[in-house]
Amino acid sequence: MSSSSTAGQVIRCRAAVAWEAGKPLVMEEVEVAPPQALEVRLKILFTSLCHTDVYFWEAKGQTPLFPRIFGHEAGGIVESVGEGVTDLKPGDHVLPVFTGECKECRHCKSEESNMCDLLRINTDRGVMLNDGKSRFSINGQPIYHFVGTSTFSEYTVVHVGCVAKINPAAPLDKVCVLSCGISTGLGATLNVAKPKKGSTVAVFGLGAVGLAAAEGARISGASRIIGIDLNAKRFDEAKKFGVTEFVNPKDHDKPVQEVLAEMTDGGVDRSIECTGSINAMISAFECVHDGWGVAVLVGVPNKDDAFKTHPMNFLNERTIKGTFFGNYKPRSDLPSVVEKYMNKELELEKFITHEVSFSEINKAFEYMLRGDGLRCIIRMDA
Amino acid sequence: MSSSSTAGQVIRCRAAVAWEAGKPLVMEEVEVAPPQALEVRLKILFTSLCHTDVYFWEAKGQTPLFPRIFGHEAGGIVESVGEGVTDLKPGDHVLPVFTGECKECRHCKSEESNMCDLLRINTDRGVMLNDGKSRFSINGQPIYHFVGTSTFSEYTVVHVGCVAKINPAAPLDKVCVLSCGISTGLGATLNVAKPKKGSTVAVFGLGAVGLAAAEGARISGASRIIGIDLNAKRFDEAKKFGVTEFVNPKDHDKPVQEVLAEMTDGGVDRSIECTGSINAMISAFECVHDGWGVAVLVGVPNKDDAFKTHPMNFLNERTIKGTFFGNYKPRSDLPSVVEKYMNKELELEKFITHEVSFSEINKAFEYMLRGDGLRCIIRMDA
Repeated sequence: MSSSSTAGQVIRCRAAVAWEAGKPLVMEEVEVAPPQALEVRLKILFTSLCHTDVYFWEAKGQTPLFPRIFGHEAGGIVESVGEGVTDLKPGDHVLPVFTGECKECRHCKSEESNMCDLLRINTDRGVMLNDGKSRFSINGQPIYHFVGTSTFSEYTVVHVGCVAKINPAAPLDKVCVLSCGISTGLGATLNVAKPKKGSTVAVFGLGAVGLAAAEGARISGASRIIGIDLNAKRFDEAKKFGVTEFVNPKDHDKPVQEVLAEMTDGGVDRSIECTGSINAMISAFECVHDGWGVAVLVGVPNKDDAFKTHPMNFLNERTIKGTFFGNYKPRSDLPSVVEKYMNKELELEKFITHEVSFSEINKAFEYMLRGDGLRCIIRMDA
Repeated sequence: MSSSSTAGQVIRCRAAVAWEAGKPLVMEEVEVAPPQALEVRLKILFTSLCHTDVYFWEAKGQTPLFPRIFGHEAGGIVESVGEGVTDLKPGDHVLPVFTGECKECRHCKSEESNMCDLLRINTDRGVMLNDGKSRFSINGQPIYHFVGTSTFSEYTVVHVGCVAKINPAAPLDKVCVLSCGISTGLGATLNVAKPKKGSTVAVFGLGAVGLAAAEGARISGASRIIGIDLNAKRFDEAKKFGVTEFVNPKDHDKPVQEVLAEMTDGGVDRSIECTGSINAMISAFECVHDGWGVAVLVGVPNKDDAFKTHPMNFLNERTIKGTFFGNYKPRSDLPSVVEKYMNKELELEKFITHEVSFSEINKAFEYMLRGDGLRCIIRMDA
């Protein structure tokens, strides 16, 4: 195994630190400790901003954990590996992922689950599993990690179970968006809803995740893809993703599930809910056709929400299921999603609407806060 | 095509007529008209009593439809066929079914559905589709049909789409129970829940349908089959069906889904709800393991019930789906269920706890009303 000159050393580099909830990130020089057992230190080349970063940065109604380094959609290169790491070596091209795959637990051994017992997403933890401490510090003060990735730093330390090794020919400034939202929506369709060729698919919510779900429907050969959103402006962009029809619930007096049933002779074949709104979840379930309809829930609900429906909706042979990260196992499955991009089946360019240099990272937050565009790539070298 | 001597004639025979809601059936001589286009006249040899017969006979909270001939679990022989019937001929051994398969509609053409648009169960209709009239009469007074089968008669007329042609070597006094409840429970497990070998399956409700679901779990090689019932007496019988553990919700202070999660390190792999109680439905969903658990709803709920759960239960990769008649298509699939009995994979004898002659049919109602036994076979020749 080759070793870089920085292996085993503390690395001093730039990181965008969130000192307080909702306040602009501050570019700081941080110290990044070497990886410990089963950890990997990565040089991040590109990162992008996802709504989850913004949600925990705003920290409304949560226990705030600051100072913290956010960021979880990224592409990078292994700089050095800790003890016991055999799957990765310096120079490997990788995507860090906010949830992991230990390959040992019941979930990892199940064909159906990707909810690893050891490395499942934990937004409350700001430290590494190995010693319960952070690998980041500024003048001795620890800076907390975020979902085990903290990619808003030129270097970061990640558990080996949260690192997907990918084709080194893949452009990291494109495939970095597969670390989270795009894979989540795409997998919801390809792995969970599984629409047949020629079927009708409804997608609730036309943000990046919903459009990735629509992209999955397009790849599956769906003949009708119906986008549902409260913001009519999103339809133009959605057309690029194969969305053929658009329904704005605000334009109708009746529940949107009834509108959809009328448009489709009884209901859609598959629906994918990407907003997290409880009403959209109920509509997404009730709009599928009896006999064979499947609704897939992706959007994360509020703590106090209740999903409520008449049980006859189930008895008439409808299915509802939820998914997490599109049911992809990070290490086992992400490399094949990258290959879908490489062989031009999956189009990633259309998700990337902005690009900024690392020093301008707060601009990416502004774009997202005002709902401008889908993904903003942050170049770490600039 | 051979033709019986009675073909084209009105047949006079015995039938057990329900003149009024909840009153004992009365043995009458009825006239059974010849089958019209796409209809078949059957000689019923054995019928059994299912809870649905009793429910509509009691007619509580429904629009009553009387006089009526109930009965929908049965085995018989084709006596004559109407115009356009090419799949069946006199002498064929058949099971009449309360729901049908036209083979033409979207549901029949879908691999996933058995909810035929034309012949889906309709409990409100008491007449034949062809002319909107009954084929039964007494001195000119029409007697209503029930779910298109009316098997409490020595002869009955059924739409060809509601008749499954089966292996003539199969004993009709056993396989007649496959017309409804047993197939419903069995198919819920084999076709919908699909437990893997070695998995843990929870069955809510240990009546005939629930025990058929357990039988499906046994056939699938489940290593633990947990029966849940409010009646502790049912456990002894349930052991014969492979149920390995028993939980009575009355024995616990906490919700039964929590009890089950503790027994199974986080939840069962599959659950099958066969009671129709809304609380059992919610428990059946919430007791499945995250990551891969599937809950299947079989029991029919009340009109005003609401299924309510926290949406995170879905997001953690749980699935819930309903089934109707075990997802079996009556004509296409029932013959293979009969074969499962013929090759001794499926054990039907243990479901048959009583037998009475046709003249004693009211005894079968008494057994069911007091919860005595599972299935009572009614011999039409006695």
